[in-house]
Amino acid sequence: MTRIGFIGVGTMGLPMAKNLLKKGFAVTAFDANPEAVTAAAAAGMAAAASAAECVATADIVITMLPSSPNVESVYTGDGGVLAAARRGTLCVDMSTIDPAVSRRVAAAGKERGVRFIDAPVSGGVPRATDGTLAIMVGGEAADVQEALPALQAMGANVIHVGPVGSGEVAKLCNNLIAGVVGVAVSEAFRIAEGFGVDPKIVTEVISKSSGNTWVMEHMHPVPGLVAKAASSHEYRPGFMTDLMCKDLGLAVDAARALRVPVFVAPAAQQVYRLASSHGLGRKDCTSVYAFLKPSAAEAPV
Amino acid sequence: MTRIGFIGVGTMGLPMAKNLLKKGFAVTAFDANPEAVTAAAAAGMAAAASAAECVATADIVITMLPSSPNVESVYTGDGGVLAAARRGTLCVDMSTIDPAVSRRVAAAGKERGVRFIDAPVSGGVPRATDGTLAIMVGGEAADVQEALPALQAMGANVIHVGPVGSGEVAKLCNNLIAGVVGVAVSEAFRIAEGFGVDPKIVTEVISKSSGNTWVMEHMHPVPGLVAKAASSHEYRPGFMTDLMCKDLGLAVDAARALRVPVFVAPAAQQVYRLASSHGLGRKDCTSVYAFLKPSAAEAPV
Amino acid sequence: MTRIGFIGVGTMGLPMAKNLLKKGFAVTAFDANPEAVTAAAAAGMAAAASAAECVATADIVITMLPSSPNVESVYTGDGGVLAAARRGTLCVDMSTIDPAVSRRVAAAGKERGVRFIDAPVSGGVPRATDGTLAIMVGGEAADVQEALPALQAMGANVIHVGPVGSGEVAKLCNNLIAGVVGVAVSEAFRIAEGFGVDPKIVTEVISKSSGNTWVMEHMHPVPGLVAKAASSHEYRPGFMTDLMCKDLGLAVDAARALRVPVFVAPAAQQVYRLASSHGLGRKDCTSVYAFLKPSAAEAPV
Amino acid sequence: MTRIGFIGVGTMGLPMAKNLLKKGFAVTAFDANPEAVTAAAAAGMAAAASAAECVATADIVITMLPSSPNVESVYTGDGGVLAAARRGTLCVDMSTIDPAVSRRVAAAGKERGVRFIDAPVSGGVPRATDGTLAIMVGGEAADVQEALPALQAMGANVIHVGPVGSGEVAKLCNNLIAGVVGVAVSEAFRIAEGFGVDPKIVTEVISKSSGNTWVMEHMHPVPGLVAKAASSHEYRPGFMTDLMCKDLGLAVDAARALRVPVFVAPAAQQVYRLASSHGLGRKDCTSVYAFLKPSAAEAPV
Repeated sequence: MTRIGFIGVGTMGLPMAKNLLKKGFAVTAFDANPEAVTAAAAAGMAAAASAAECVATADIVITMLPSSPNVESVYTGDGGVLAAARRGTLCVDMSTIDPAVSRRVAAAGKERGVRFIDAPVSGGVPRATDGTLAIMVGGEAADVQEALPALQAMGANVIHVGPVGSGEVAKLCNNLIAGVVGVAVSEAFRIAEGFGVDPKIVTEVISKSSGNTWVMEHMHPVPGLVAKAASSHEYRPGFMTDLMCKDLGLAVDAARALRVPVFVAPAAQQVYRLASSHGLGRKDCTSVYAFLKPSAAEAPV
Repeated sequence: MTRIGFIGVGTMGLPMAKNLLKKGFAVTAFDANPEAVTAAAAAGMAAAASAAECVATADIVITMLPSSPNVESVYTGDGGVLAAARRGTLCVDMSTIDPAVSRRVAAAGKERGVRFIDAPVSGGVPRATDGTLAIMVGGEAADVQEALPALQAMGANVIHVGPVGSGEVAKLCNNLIAGVVGVAVSEAFRIAEGFGVDPKIVTEVISKSSGNTWVMEHMHPVPGLVAKAASSHEYRPGFMTDLMCKDLGLAVDAARALRVPVFVAPAAQQVYRLASSHGLGRKDCTSVYAFLKPSAAEAPV
Repeated sequence: MTRIGFIGVGTMGLPMAKNLLKKGFAVTAFDANPEAVTAAAAAGMAAAASAAECVATADIVITMLPSSPNVESVYTGDGGVLAAARRGTLCVDMSTIDPAVSRRVAAAGKERGVRFIDAPVSGGVPRATDGTLAIMVGGEAADVQEALPALQAMGANVIHVGPVGSGEVAKLCNNLIAGVVGVAVSEAFRIAEGFGVDPKIVTEVISKSSGNTWVMEHMHPVPGLVAKAASSHEYRPGFMTDLMCKDLGLAVDAARALRVPVFVAPAAQQVYRLASSHGLGRKDCTSVYAFLKPSAAEAPV
Repeated sequence: MTRIGFIGVGTMGLPMAKNLLKKGFAVTAFDANPEAVTAAAAAGMAAAASAAECVATADIVITMLPSSPNVESVYTGDGGVLAAARRGTLCVDMSTIDPAVSRRVAAAGKERGVRFIDAPVSGGVPRATDGTLAIMVGGEAADVQEALPALQAMGANVIHVGPVGSGEVAKLCNNLIAGVVGVAVSEAFRIAEGFGVDPKIVTEVISKSSGNTWVMEHMHPVPGLVAKAASSHEYRPGFMTDLMCKDLGLAVDAARALRVPVFVAPAAQQVYRLASSHGLGRKDCTSVYAFLKPSAAEAPV
């Protein structure tokens, strides 16, 4: 029986770890938040008192953490995974982070004989719960192969993109586009609305034309047009504004490090940021449509 | 036999008028550029010496002009269509212009007993030539019905969107999204490239995820991934950067008039504008990918 | 005694016209809003029942109107100034509008023997009341000379910039910069605040360095640093967000017509627009600082 | 005689270190680039073979490095300054970096009994050579006092802004504004030019109005208006586009970390980035004016 050390059993990590349990993996859990560990124990996992303890006897280490600095310190900090894991351990980081950090951690692992692949997910809490996440993987083919049974316990669609970091790159690129499209569709439909044109017909026209996008089809920001979209349910997430803001931030930062000029990505990022400032951070990201409302008529001179 | 007065027989208008001829309409042509009239005559149309002469005996007037001021002056200027056409004439403006201008011209027409609908097209010269344009129509149902045979001679997909101006609104909204997406996809793939990840695999990942768009599928900006895309043919248009810039300009102007805040649309508009300044105006708009190349390493301090 | 026909006696126009009266000009007033005419009459002006009546016997016509379309229709519409004024009349448009419209109206005037100059103002209601406006003038030198006594009755600083339209151009360029600076200073001080650094000392440092600007010195967006700034008085205008938005809109539109690529101007324009959507339209434009507040900590994953 | 260990004797660091020598400090130099060390030795400094050797006997350590990661690794890496310096040594980092990194290094120093202040400079190579840099300092008052003689050997204007990191914050805020203003002034003057209005007179008008800025007065981007400006000397720096891009990048990154929404700063950053991509990286940053040229007339339809 493969032993998994799972670090980061929060909103996303816990349902993912539960699916591993369900598929017969032995899971030991750790989280910086003790309540999360308690919840994991209640679900039948072994509870570890530290990251080091969590990974000491693991065959595979899985991490699901909020941000690049968390990943870097959990792996390379004092008492971190790279120091505590046995030589040959396979580490799978499923966090959404800067691909350069993935590569840095992988290189540090190599020096200590620990293998590392990146495997960020898409699909949010509902698909984490169902075990149907999309998982984009970067790493050596043999390592990806070895991780596959565990990944398939959590996701329905596992794609090997390329060398270490490539999973993160694919995710960032995807979310850059989706995030920008969310704002573009919102702007377009505010204009249609301003002209008094039926958004349902405009949606039909666009769906057959060059402006068609997955976001409009599945996450239409105008309430009432797509029954399953968050907009039709008071913008309950779905994919939160704050997460979209974070992912666009990673993409824009990566562009800076690569010296790639980007214009629509930072513009969209800042719109989500500002929407968050004005109370929409934990709503679905398509609530940006509500935020971009027209202003009242200008004051006469 | 329905008599058509066709004003504006340039790059787009001429092949459209030829398809009307081919389907048995009697076409009289006029253009501000005498060479265009000569070409129309060579193709078998009657040549008119003025807009007034062109429409004097027409059942249906069709206009295909470069910009809002052109449409406004051709219709409402001295010797314009509204003055010269017989009462009851049906005018079909197929230019891509500001929907507010369409409505203004329609109102002016109503005062003089002339009917007006807007019917902008999408598909470019190739589909104008094939008679397979997509046509988005705004106007009274009866007028749209009456224009249908002529429209179907030029296009394969005719959609009645709503009242006058609605065709333009649908087109602007569509092109706003497509134009922004073109920049977003370019930014994303420049980032993937900077990380050294295979763009083909990234394309596959995104095509099954939330970032999927018509533009990536059909107009992929990275050369060599989509055989029919302009990028695979040295960015020969396709849809020119200058036209995308114009359409985004119309959308942004409309937003201003409606007091709708827009962020990614003007950012994309200005990227196309700047690309045009640097020589890409008459290349396909996806050449923006080539324009957004990374800069060289920064100078050391 | 020079007879002035003054069209547009609203918030700005009325105090300007009063200063003309005070300096001994005979003023006949008209406004589309009858209450404004009543107020003008109460202040001692002759009341006209129409624009045509207002200008029929005037030596100089002055217009102070909200927007480009208003100016165009007041001058060139049916019963407009150009039709009603006597040959040789000098028209002075003090509205803030598109310079291309100024030129168009001037050309139309020339055809009818009516002279036209543009003379937009800066300084707002307080300086309109004091008669100390800054006035930027575009037109023939002789016409500007002839208008000078009237202009000096309303303003303290009259500058002849160049040919017709140049006054508007100078104003748009100035306000483009001031509007962008207002956002830039707000962003910078939000960052300083985020780091917990005293904004007063940061202001001192910047005031002696390359980031110094008139806006920071006189309209500092952070409350409490500049006693006379609107920020220190709950953002009471001052210069309203809606007006800044309008002026940036004119600048961005002009850029589009001239095919000049612009990036920071539309970004700033849209921030003011969105601030207006969220209730700050009639506050001072520096309230954009309040609008750009940081968001709360992101939700944990 | 105070012994200085100076790390980073490149384009900026060498002339700064020379001024210390000239004022009687004993300077030991190190640089990752051996040629830079040779040049320092030729100028009369002691050459160190490593950072550790450079700081081993220093009373004050000064660092002048290109970026945040360089500073972090030089201080906290293996064989770094914090490990090698004696307890009680005062470290003065004069690099332009992320204020959060300054604070992190200061905290790491405190643990090892080493003091740290940040003291970024402004003025470029000419003022580094003259010893007239502006220096913005963050740190404990006593530490700043102790560093003052050394700082005054290099700069003419030393300002203590606040606690550690505050010098960097002040510099970023200043450069954010200056960088945005550079683009705004360029956009405004491209518009004035498009209308054919004399830029000299527009400059005069703006210099007395709300759009006045230090950048326009001293670094006017239009050639020929300010004799000393880089624009009048083929955009020879001055302050390079790549450095402006870097500083705006630091400001935008800081905003992200602080969750402050920013719009004009990233727009300006990306314009400089793109200008660098197109060959202007080592020209003066005001060459952005040349880059923002209007496009040719659009192709007719």
